[in-house]
Amino acid sequence: MKEKSISKAVIKRLPKYYRYLGDLLEFAVERISSKELSEQMKVTSSQIRQDLNNFGGFGQQGYGYNVRYLHDEIGKILGLNKIHNMVIIGAGNLGQALANYISFERSGFRTVGLFDVNPVLQDVTVRGIPIRMLDELQEFIKENKVEIATLTLPKSKAKEVAKLLLEYGIRALWNFAHTDLNLFLPRDVVVENVHLSESLMQLSYNLNSYEEKHKIKK
Amino acid sequence: MKEKSISKAVIKRLPKYYRYLGDLLEFAVERISSKELSEQMKVTSSQIRQDLNNFGGFGQQGYGYNVRYLHDEIGKILGLNKIHNMVIIGAGNLGQALANYISFERSGFRTVGLFDVNPVLQDVTVRGIPIRMLDELQEFIKENKVEIATLTLPKSKAKEVAKLLLEYGIRALWNFAHTDLNLFLPRDVVVENVHLSESLMQLSYNLNSYEEKHKIKK
Repeated sequence: MKEKSISKAVIKRLPKYYRYLGDLLEFAVERISSKELSEQMKVTSSQIRQDLNNFGGFGQQGYGYNVRYLHDEIGKILGLNKIHNMVIIGAGNLGQALANYISFERSGFRTVGLFDVNPVLQDVTVRGIPIRMLDELQEFIKENKVEIATLTLPKSKAKEVAKLLLEYGIRALWNFAHTDLNLFLPRDVVVENVHLSESLMQLSYNLNSYEEKHKIKK
Repeated sequence: MKEKSISKAVIKRLPKYYRYLGDLLEFAVERISSKELSEQMKVTSSQIRQDLNNFGGFGQQGYGYNVRYLHDEIGKILGLNKIHNMVIIGAGNLGQALANYISFERSGFRTVGLFDVNPVLQDVTVRGIPIRMLDELQEFIKENKVEIATLTLPKSKAKEVAKLLLEYGIRALWNFAHTDLNLFLPRDVVVENVHLSESLMQLSYNLNSYEEKHKIKK
């Protein structure tokens, strides 16, 4: 399947389609109309059709979508039909928690290495993965065909380590540090920022507005 | 300051302004023009002015923005001038990692309780917080004026626990379970979904497209 230039908004919705279709498969649903899917996902059916048309359709008039086929095709578009080797840089609480997350492995994201600069952590293992020191990183990336680096380290270290990773051949960064790494890196580096604090602040904003609207005093 | 109805996109950008302004404060920057801020944040200065006009401006012609004032005012809009008590439901790896995250506390989000259903975890403490069993939750929420519940539990349990939390008076959910909780709950419940796997899938999609564009064979 040849891909055109796809908008960010569509790309953002693809994992959601994948998740909903996965849920349907768990309930042994074999086919679904865009209308039914739209009711479950609370998006319009015309949006679903438009989104999927970016990748050449998939639906059949009068039949709807074959759930298994659509699920697997979207999986391929998302690159989930391949194994992606991943290292985590920063083996603090968040780094260790992510290393322990088995559900990423089920989607093909395999944590093969865990790195830190704190010598106290050297050779501590998390789910069987030993924590290594940063000076082993370059060799490790080459030997283990690592594609993705997850950054769970302080903002002050993130830029420097990101540049190191690029030198070592990494093109994809999953960034949890409190900084927009993409602004400092070449455009062809793929960065996905996860700012947990900011999501919490949005929650707090919405809670605030709710309370103001309903004149809740505390 | 009276708030109008503000678009989701603006609300999403507020924590980012807050973060950039916080960084400027660390470097003792006292004032900044929308042009300089726009260069750092890589958004247009007209967007900055428009966004902040939603809350009544803040800028002064020819002077720019007072960094400390703007930072603190945005903090107030986000509700960061108050302490928000938070419980975490699901004391697995992710739940424990979030409980250990001190930077949330710095923004006023205080984890006061950690809950699970697994009796093995009972009375294990994380950063001094004992893990409690779910049957203590109702009493605990009342006694500790809990406002926010973080859900780090399997999708299969999330809906049920969310409904319980609403009964107990919680109006704000920070949801890490792989399901869009807001679709099952009353509209006045504030939900912020964090789907880590989906962010990883977007990264993988972008990496895939990059490799296709550059014809990288593996």
